[in-house]
Amino acid sequence: MTAVEEAERLALAALTRLGEPGDRELIGFVDDRGAAAVIESIRDGSLPSERITHYAARLSAVHPDVDLAYAARIGARLVCPGDLEWPTQLDQLGDQRPLALWVRGAENLRLAALRSVAMVGSRAATGYGEHVAGEMAAVVAERGWTVVSGAAYGVDSAAHRGALAVDGTTIAVLACGVDVVYPRSSAGLLTHIADTGVVVSELAPGCSVTRPRFLNRNRVIAALTRGTVVVEAAVRSGAQSTARWAIGLERFVMVVPGPVTSVSSAGCHDLLRRHPSAVQLVTDGLDVIDLVGRIGEDAAPERRGAESARDDLEPDTLRVLEALPRRRAVPVDNLVRSAGVDVATVLRCLTVLEDAGLAQRHGGGWRVIPLPTPAG
Amino acid sequence: MTAVEEAERLALAALTRLGEPGDRELIGFVDDRGAAAVIESIRDGSLPSERITHYAARLSAVHPDVDLAYAARIGARLVCPGDLEWPTQLDQLGDQRPLALWVRGAENLRLAALRSVAMVGSRAATGYGEHVAGEMAAVVAERGWTVVSGAAYGVDSAAHRGALAVDGTTIAVLACGVDVVYPRSSAGLLTHIADTGVVVSELAPGCSVTRPRFLNRNRVIAALTRGTVVVEAAVRSGAQSTARWAIGLERFVMVVPGPVTSVSSAGCHDLLRRHPSAVQLVTDGLDVIDLVGRIGEDAAPERRGAESARDDLEPDTLRVLEALPRRRAVPVDNLVRSAGVDVATVLRCLTVLEDAGLAQRHGGGWRVIPLPTPAG
Repeated sequence: MTAVEEAERLALAALTRLGEPGDRELIGFVDDRGAAAVIESIRDGSLPSERITHYAARLSAVHPDVDLAYAARIGARLVCPGDLEWPTQLDQLGDQRPLALWVRGAENLRLAALRSVAMVGSRAATGYGEHVAGEMAAVVAERGWTVVSGAAYGVDSAAHRGALAVDGTTIAVLACGVDVVYPRSSAGLLTHIADTGVVVSELAPGCSVTRPRFLNRNRVIAALTRGTVVVEAAVRSGAQSTARWAIGLERFVMVVPGPVTSVSSAGCHDLLRRHPSAVQLVTDGLDVIDLVGRIGEDAAPERRGAESARDDLEPDTLRVLEALPRRRAVPVDNLVRSAGVDVATVLRCLTVLEDAGLAQRHGGGWRVIPLPTPAG
Repeated sequence: MTAVEEAERLALAALTRLGEPGDRELIGFVDDRGAAAVIESIRDGSLPSERITHYAARLSAVHPDVDLAYAARIGARLVCPGDLEWPTQLDQLGDQRPLALWVRGAENLRLAALRSVAMVGSRAATGYGEHVAGEMAAVVAERGWTVVSGAAYGVDSAAHRGALAVDGTTIAVLACGVDVVYPRSSAGLLTHIADTGVVVSELAPGCSVTRPRFLNRNRVIAALTRGTVVVEAAVRSGAQSTARWAIGLERFVMVVPGPVTSVSSAGCHDLLRRHPSAVQLVTDGLDVIDLVGRIGEDAAPERRGAESARDDLEPDTLRVLEALPRRRAVPVDNLVRSAGVDVATVLRCLTVLEDAGLAQRHGGGWRVIPLPTPAG
């Protein structure tokens, strides 16, 4: 599924190690000249940046071919803008979008993030917060939504675990390399996520966490998903920063209330008070699905029967639908062969079919949702 | 302070025993012909109502003069529309306003309700709900706001007690006669409220509670106050009905969130979700004051110094201000004498002075708020 030239891919890999997440200047250079040219102008000293000396000094220690080979060994890959696996919703971040993403795991990032919800919150979660995060993630994941979080202690871990408990898909977006275990206690969790879902980072393998990296990571969580649920958050917390990103990106922002006597819920109440029109109160997973699921409904305000929905499909979409098996789910590659259309078309058609309620993701593949048998 | 004719007062007293709260037909008759004429046409059988037989059968057992004499003995009085003590905000209920109110207690109902907030909630409150209600009521009452509730078990009692604990003013609006103790456990509480605040009912002395009376009582609580706080409420609860009345009357409606795992907070979350623009989330008493206090601020968007506020006062208002002592609070009657204006004018001027931050209620009287000494 390589769509980006090898030289450009190597240069982007190098830049994920040279630059820092959210560096607008660097993205600007890449947009203007391409990543390979940026590396070249660092090497020859012509990049018009105050950080040129810093970049040049580090460049000799950067070996993107080694990083890519190492990534392949640990089951990771670099996903670049233009690749089929690139989640195009990240482009809404503009000059704060990630340069590229290191991705480790069994799932296709773009497909997994297609219908996804972020669940974030305090590291210092209470039993209440962890309980609600776990329950909510399980309900959401059980209905085919991917749960995205940051693999941190507390609410994040509870959300990932809730999704995994029902064999759902979950994505961990890290503030360190996809091979770095942080926090230590997440080792088992991260392995489990990579086995069935995706672990993602915009930092090169081996990079460690820093405070700015945590904060910048939040914008990826907000941009990747259709909505963000803040389960428990103190005031001035990272979860609030994710919520603010989500508000700015016009995603759904959902907040779980809690006791007014709990400092762990103060940030949640603060969000509800400050942004009454942008933030919604949710009390369980069904509330969440009810909100984030509205996009599909908006496109089809009257709920029509599946039969008539099928009548409206374009030829390519109909071809992909015919190629989908009823019971077993098949990977996208199989559909490319059996439907006789290219990968990009298959992905586009699957989105249409999913929104029309005709197809669903299952494990790493896709299957058709059987038409209901007419009653009476 | 009697402004309503004796015959009319006796007739209204009789109607509070004959009719039921919120009876629009009865209010319509009273508005059209006056209460005395309504009693007359019940007696002569000419009232065009399907309930005429019911009213006529009960009329012989109704003795308003006895009720009024009994009321006087227990420290109660009948307050009628047109009386100076009548809280005119109740007229916003239109043909659902109370016919009159039986009032027991040391405070003037109209003055006590001038700056008041309702705090309502579950009888089956949790420890959390009672704790929050008590704390919130204390903060609000400490800052000169009257706490209005229904004297029920749970949240209501906690709110009254919170206000009493800081020597604040509190009003209990009952769904039975002001001499009836319901629930039994409220006996001490009701005595305490009557000693320093007001106990109110639109039902004649001796009347007992019924389910419709509970529901109709809620409209009086909502209409009497500037805003209603729902502390804890199950779905389909009485507190939600009070909140809906408050929304309809364009009062502030405030909701305390709680754990999403608690059924006692489900009604609160339901209100926040269903009425995002009409309902505000509050977490403590200062939040409440911040909202309900806005009326005064709206009238004076730029916070001006007290000196310049004083310059803008009308001659009557200035006269009342001059008559107000700085330390000791004086009752309204004294101000009538010392300012040389009538009672209605004194009351109007006190409202202006209170909103301008120049006067404040204290105990049963009024005093001036001293001008701040210029610093530096």
